[in-house]
Amino acid sequence: MLDGARRCFARYGYEGATVVRLEREIGLSRGAIFNWFPSKQELFLALAAEDNARLHALFAEEGFDALLEAVTEHEPDWLAVYLEFGRLLKADPGLRERWVAIAPPEARERSRAWIEYGQASGELRSDLSAEEIGQFIGVVVDGVVAQRALGFDPPPRELVLRLVRQAIRAGGPVSDVGPTRPGVDTPRGTSVSD
Amino acid sequence: MLDGARRCFARYGYEGATVVRLEREIGLSRGAIFNWFPSKQELFLALAAEDNARLHALFAEEGFDALLEAVTEHEPDWLAVYLEFGRLLKADPGLRERWVAIAPPEARERSRAWIEYGQASGELRSDLSAEEIGQFIGVVVDGVVAQRALGFDPPPRELVLRLVRQAIRAGGPVSDVGPTRPGVDTPRGTSVSD
Repeated sequence: MLDGARRCFARYGYEGATVVRLEREIGLSRGAIFNWFPSKQELFLALAAEDNARLHALFAEEGFDALLEAVTEHEPDWLAVYLEFGRLLKADPGLRERWVAIAPPEARERSRAWIEYGQASGELRSDLSAEEIGQFIGVVVDGVVAQRALGFDPPPRELVLRLVRQAIRAGGPVSDVGPTRPGVDTPRGTSVSD
Repeated sequence: MLDGARRCFARYGYEGATVVRLEREIGLSRGAIFNWFPSKQELFLALAAEDNARLHALFAEEGFDALLEAVTEHEPDWLAVYLEFGRLLKADPGLRERWVAIAPPEARERSRAWIEYGQASGELRSDLSAEEIGQFIGVVVDGVVAQRALGFDPPPRELVLRLVRQAIRAGGPVSDVGPTRPGVDTPRGTSVSD
């Protein structure tokens, strides 16, 4: 049911996803659909919660690279629904509060633990709290999402990764620290300017 | 006229800014308005071009701090119009092309020159092109804009500044380089970590 709803929102937008269209894409009657989700808003929130939990899990298990990759591969049509839904969020403080808490607490907890682990192991900077590092990552991810949702190509993932890593990594002689994981390990000093 | 139009869009949203409302906020008849701007879309594009030119000028004259400050102080209601306009952008590749070129070429050129100057003077990393650094800054700024437009509080400006600086600064002993405040011009090596 959630897959059908997701397709429907992505195809028609939030406003455009009428009950008739939801019925058709989901393959269930409105009675059946609204038996599970009391409103279109609740249906969308369930999808957003699903996304959020998945992204937190990815981040906690595989790090920022995987998170950024997932966001970069999300269909722009689906991301655009978020922007559209944003108008409702903006107009409704109660809804905004629910939104802030949309990821399950344990998912958020695991993300925070991942950052704290990176700090404890000396890989991530510890002059900022885990929450602050998480907030910065959130801004970057939201920037990528916004650009994609509007139909633009964000900068190459590799570039964003490299700069975010440089921002959040622990201090140390920079001169011999390149990006720290396979895939981005171009030796520093390599000129990539064009 | 542009000020009135801006107020009208911020108050009613892009769709909600009807001709009647535009007339009222601008204080001119539709004949007079559409004499200057052939359509509502052109009117909005003129405002966006104005914003863009101003932000580029700020960046080129005062750096990322000033740019981020301006974006952080923009009224969320006005930023939300951008997100709404995004639906049109997304649906219309021709419009998207105009959008990409919305800042006057000389404004973009000055921003690029500013980054190149920072690279030449050894303050900014030169293993990336000025364009790549600009793209990253764009992602961060768009993330802040998106969060504000949706009614959320982005992380404190100071935090974002600190991390972006760390991301784009030239290499060097990181261990004694804290965030470099105020301005970006604190001598390198000053420890301000807390």
